[in-house]
Amino acid sequence: MMSLLVVSAHAGDFVWRAAGAIALATARGEPATVVCLTYGERGESAKAWREGHTLDEIKTLRRTEASNAAHVLGADIEFLDAGDYPLLETPELVDRIVHIYRRLNPTIVLTHPLTDPYNNDHPAAARMALQARILAQAPGYNAPGQPLGAPPVFFFEPHQPEQCDFTPNLLLDITNVFDTKHQAMHCLPAQQHMWHYYTDLATRRGTQLTRNAGPNLALPHTTKAEAYMRLYPQVTGELA
Amino acid sequence: MMSLLVVSAHAGDFVWRAAGAIALATARGEPATVVCLTYGERGESAKAWREGHTLDEIKTLRRTEASNAAHVLGADIEFLDAGDYPLLETPELVDRIVHIYRRLNPTIVLTHPLTDPYNNDHPAAARMALQARILAQAPGYNAPGQPLGAPPVFFFEPHQPEQCDFTPNLLLDITNVFDTKHQAMHCLPAQQHMWHYYTDLATRRGTQLTRNAGPNLALPHTTKAEAYMRLYPQVTGELA
Amino acid sequence: MMSLLVVSAHAGDFVWRAAGAIALATARGEPATVVCLTYGERGESAKAWREGHTLDEIKTLRRTEASNAAHVLGADIEFLDAGDYPLLETPELVDRIVHIYRRLNPTIVLTHPLTDPYNNDHPAAARMALQARILAQAPGYNAPGQPLGAPPVFFFEPHQPEQCDFTPNLLLDITNVFDTKHQAMHCLPAQQHMWHYYTDLATRRGTQLTRNAGPNLALPHTTKAEAYMRLYPQVTGELA
Amino acid sequence: MMSLLVVSAHAGDFVWRAAGAIALATARGEPATVVCLTYGERGESAKAWREGHTLDEIKTLRRTEASNAAHVLGADIEFLDAGDYPLLETPELVDRIVHIYRRLNPTIVLTHPLTDPYNNDHPAAARMALQARILAQAPGYNAPGQPLGAPPVFFFEPHQPEQCDFTPNLLLDITNVFDTKHQAMHCLPAQQHMWHYYTDLATRRGTQLTRNAGPNLALPHTTKAEAYMRLYPQVTGELA
Amino acid sequence: MMSLLVVSAHAGDFVWRAAGAIALATARGEPATVVCLTYGERGESAKAWREGHTLDEIKTLRRTEASNAAHVLGADIEFLDAGDYPLLETPELVDRIVHIYRRLNPTIVLTHPLTDPYNNDHPAAARMALQARILAQAPGYNAPGQPLGAPPVFFFEPHQPEQCDFTPNLLLDITNVFDTKHQAMHCLPAQQHMWHYYTDLATRRGTQLTRNAGPNLALPHTTKAEAYMRLYPQVTGELA
Amino acid sequence: MMSLLVVSAHAGDFVWRAAGAIALATARGEPATVVCLTYGERGESAKAWREGHTLDEIKTLRRTEASNAAHVLGADIEFLDAGDYPLLETPELVDRIVHIYRRLNPTIVLTHPLTDPYNNDHPAAARMALQARILAQAPGYNAPGQPLGAPPVFFFEPHQPEQCDFTPNLLLDITNVFDTKHQAMHCLPAQQHMWHYYTDLATRRGTQLTRNAGPNLALPHTTKAEAYMRLYPQVTGELA
Repeated sequence: MMSLLVVSAHAGDFVWRAAGAIALATARGEPATVVCLTYGERGESAKAWREGHTLDEIKTLRRTEASNAAHVLGADIEFLDAGDYPLLETPELVDRIVHIYRRLNPTIVLTHPLTDPYNNDHPAAARMALQARILAQAPGYNAPGQPLGAPPVFFFEPHQPEQCDFTPNLLLDITNVFDTKHQAMHCLPAQQHMWHYYTDLATRRGTQLTRNAGPNLALPHTTKAEAYMRLYPQVTGELA
Repeated sequence: MMSLLVVSAHAGDFVWRAAGAIALATARGEPATVVCLTYGERGESAKAWREGHTLDEIKTLRRTEASNAAHVLGADIEFLDAGDYPLLETPELVDRIVHIYRRLNPTIVLTHPLTDPYNNDHPAAARMALQARILAQAPGYNAPGQPLGAPPVFFFEPHQPEQCDFTPNLLLDITNVFDTKHQAMHCLPAQQHMWHYYTDLATRRGTQLTRNAGPNLALPHTTKAEAYMRLYPQVTGELA
Repeated sequence: MMSLLVVSAHAGDFVWRAAGAIALATARGEPATVVCLTYGERGESAKAWREGHTLDEIKTLRRTEASNAAHVLGADIEFLDAGDYPLLETPELVDRIVHIYRRLNPTIVLTHPLTDPYNNDHPAAARMALQARILAQAPGYNAPGQPLGAPPVFFFEPHQPEQCDFTPNLLLDITNVFDTKHQAMHCLPAQQHMWHYYTDLATRRGTQLTRNAGPNLALPHTTKAEAYMRLYPQVTGELA
Repeated sequence: MMSLLVVSAHAGDFVWRAAGAIALATARGEPATVVCLTYGERGESAKAWREGHTLDEIKTLRRTEASNAAHVLGADIEFLDAGDYPLLETPELVDRIVHIYRRLNPTIVLTHPLTDPYNNDHPAAARMALQARILAQAPGYNAPGQPLGAPPVFFFEPHQPEQCDFTPNLLLDITNVFDTKHQAMHCLPAQQHMWHYYTDLATRRGTQLTRNAGPNLALPHTTKAEAYMRLYPQVTGELA
Repeated sequence: MMSLLVVSAHAGDFVWRAAGAIALATARGEPATVVCLTYGERGESAKAWREGHTLDEIKTLRRTEASNAAHVLGADIEFLDAGDYPLLETPELVDRIVHIYRRLNPTIVLTHPLTDPYNNDHPAAARMALQARILAQAPGYNAPGQPLGAPPVFFFEPHQPEQCDFTPNLLLDITNVFDTKHQAMHCLPAQQHMWHYYTDLATRRGTQLTRNAGPNLALPHTTKAEAYMRLYPQVTGELA
Repeated sequence: MMSLLVVSAHAGDFVWRAAGAIALATARGEPATVVCLTYGERGESAKAWREGHTLDEIKTLRRTEASNAAHVLGADIEFLDAGDYPLLETPELVDRIVHIYRRLNPTIVLTHPLTDPYNNDHPAAARMALQARILAQAPGYNAPGQPLGAPPVFFFEPHQPEQCDFTPNLLLDITNVFDTKHQAMHCLPAQQHMWHYYTDLATRRGTQLTRNAGPNLALPHTTKAEAYMRLYPQVTGELA
């Protein structure tokens, strides 16, 4: 049985960058869980701060919006409230993530890429997601549950991919669930310009997908896609 | 319907490096064709030269051996006899490969990686295989047949991978066809040390495959694998 | 006095990828010249071939369209008709480009990036543009005119930038001339989907430009940009 | 109004590597501030230790020398005295740097490159300078002053550039202020061999500058330069 | 007088990856010391955990095995017991390693490479080994003994070299001491599959060594080698 | 018996960049041969062209100067007169170089690095030198003499190393023969500014050599060095 785990630095990241993959998984009946290490309360809530909201108000707002988006996508969501800007890497936080791996036993892991010169919280989240995955694999690590297998890890697309050493090596066809992604994006009303930006991006990645698709695939012009970068080698019994 | 095309610089390359992928394809009932640009008559036949054979004898010998190996693998084989050491890149040779693409309409392409500081014929073959694939896609290119689609390209493993910028991003499980690969390797009797070398390599890549396999896979210690490097992004409807 | 030279593999490339830079130059009263090494008659005219046009008809069509676009941009245009798919690198073609450098004495050069796994004509054009620039600098090279200086070279954006090692290190604000670029794109009616694609791209690069702009710049949400990659170090008397 | 901020690991780094850029800014009437995270009291004061000085004496000595050099350059200087060899990255130190960004609101930032296998304090300083810049941009970050804009960041040249992945993409003409740099270097009498080393380097970078300069520039053989590496894409309205 | 220091994350690492280099050094009469930062008690002892041993039992077991292997190799061994999975980087642990450098004054240092997506303890150990080496060089660093010189650093081979950016630039001929390495490997009975894996690897690296050996070397087919990656430039008075 | 082969694009390249290595070899009594593919008559003789000399005069001049420099260094020199700017890669020219390898049987090869955005003749020479080395190794290649062994290849330093992906991994101590290099440089009177440039460079590389030298080496401040980049892995029986 497949199951998906998404480790996200801030509350909104998973919506823009991985909602398609999440919706595909839940549409197949597979469980999906989003772990937000922070609410993005300081670094990703500029509008709310300018409007004069307090820290607690902003956290509550972001939590509600992200929960709504996860609900639309059919995913569970957990908030670790670790504090953003900066998101600090600590053994304790890594340990909490290990416990999540052991509890959920995911077969696929999504997280941020390891480089982002515009936002250090993103690579920090990725480093902790990767470290926790390794620790969870060790029988000797002291946490409940069985040792984790070797779930493949995919990095989702950052905002300025070329500056983040992000070279997509997988294009995921999300055409059939794009309406759901669209609806999830609308759960984040403060960032309307992002709705357009990530719709355009899905179209552009869709165009690239059709260009890279094998000869047996007849794909419509309306194809939408998300780009991913695989960290570990693909394991397969058939080239395709 | 899937079909496999392997573009190989010399007569023996496809055996050591891609026999597993070929055998998997033919075992599934899919056609596979190997195109040897040269017989490897000058660069890969040191033993025969030391024994005093003539150029024609060596070509005939290599042709027979490679044909036998292809037969064992269930693949067709064609020889372009373009001359090795050096294998020269010419528009005419590229055009011949374009015609092959148009005739066979492959859905998967295998060739050498683009870097090899020990053997310039290998990257030359790869550059021509890639160039011909692009030309065959253009409706305006003057060759019989329909324009090619966009078959994915995989580089097979070179002899000294780290010196060739070869970072495997796909490990192919060839356990079930390894006996066939073993038999194909034995069709090349002049290179017995290569039998052991590539058996050891298959074991080592198999060990790595089991380390990278997802949690749902229970793989035996006898797993054998071949390593590949995907040139274009993978196109898929499901992360795995 | 500044002057711009654009070396383009096919007739349409300069429109999608560099029309903004050209329009900015001509709006400042600086001369700009586009050199199309080919008409893109085989590789970039799929629709015309499918409609059954002859090679000569397609060349004429592409020439007319590109000339119209250049006219809109206020640029001169020259066609070398070197034949595309494949665009072959020859000393004679390089020599023709050297003569152009010596004749025009450009102060800025634009061309394709050096890597493109989807289209080998693009890097071939770039290699020849760069080689000709170097040859034109040598007093001993036998061509009329004065030795060239050291005009900076910028690579314009390829269609799938991440697969082409294209990491923009310059974002050019083309907001004020985007209407002109839009009009130039409309001179190429066979590729309507490209109009949208490159308008979206200009918006996306514009968003990135505003994110990277220094604190003194107040830029509107409607900012449009083109991305470039500088080959040689920038020479300046002031950091900015 | 432009203003320059230099974040330097040790007290002397800014003199050897960025004095030219500082002198150019102050000569234009723009304010410049150097922030020395440490005095370099342990790692960059070998001679003083060999002479038997105490830690406090060495700190005082280095502070005086660096202050003198800053004075010559017309720059302000601040010392955070965070302790070197090792310079430890802490949230508290990053926070102090955020406060400086908010107070000074720089439009240009200079710091060390991110790789240096000879000196870990240098990349540590750079990581903190970059992290503080990002944090200072967030309206939600709790520090006095207005959110920072997006000042461009330039890495100055390390001692062994090729080993530090330092590929200059900007050559700054410091000919007119080289006398001032020379005078500033002489404020650090313990490192006389560095005076010659960095004078030679300025000459060599100057030679490279003239080779990369555009055709309109007539530059003398006495040109002096400093090399920089731009972290973020350049934003501009004109290619040059 | 030469002396060798090996900094190893876990108790067994030095055996698989550097036993040949150690045995060569001690065979020449040079002292060699292995420093194990941890016993690998959690991350590298899966079998013992599955058998139900306690943490203390596992530590004792690993200590005994590693000590036996070091004894076979003629090397001293020290255990810092810093705790693995995760191995945490702390200033205190780095300081302990500085003291070791100052005490032993090694002329050659071996450690893990800086990248390993399968095991974060390995790069953590490497970073600390490198940082301590730099600190030990500074006369101002407060630790007993003389400042360290500049011993060259070599990374030994990780388990999946291509995934770890490990490009060997040195192949060490260990043929004459391979029996000793074999015997040392047998001191670690829980990992019998590793005996075969690293024997095969030594054969494969040996084959590569003979291919890269200069024309004056006549090397047998039984050549065994270990691969290394040099961090700093080689210093020499003669090309070879 | 060691012997050195230097493959140089133009007549003067070997003097500036490899004279130290040559002088060291000949001082040890080993033969050294320089092969100049061209005289650098068009690309490296700007001064002579400006003075109005003819092509033949320039070739003669350059030949004389280079021969004098080789004489000072104790090396043989051969001129292939293949024509520069551009230096064209042809099978015939490669074949001539193969014959040289077979005749001289060098144990060390020096040539240009493979990347140089300022001069395409340099990488062209390097590609041919490498290709000829590989071809000369094949018993089946039709040229007199015995098959070549596997002589290591070193790239010497280009004029702008960072722009040429030149990361030195070997620093060669040329202190004892620097006077000879100095004298050889003075055989090229048209390029006096190069005398100073490469003397400064030797000093700078010497400083870096002393910083990278192991702890047993006591090196004077007057150390001079040349930087090299090793193409193939070093083969050795002892780490140093």
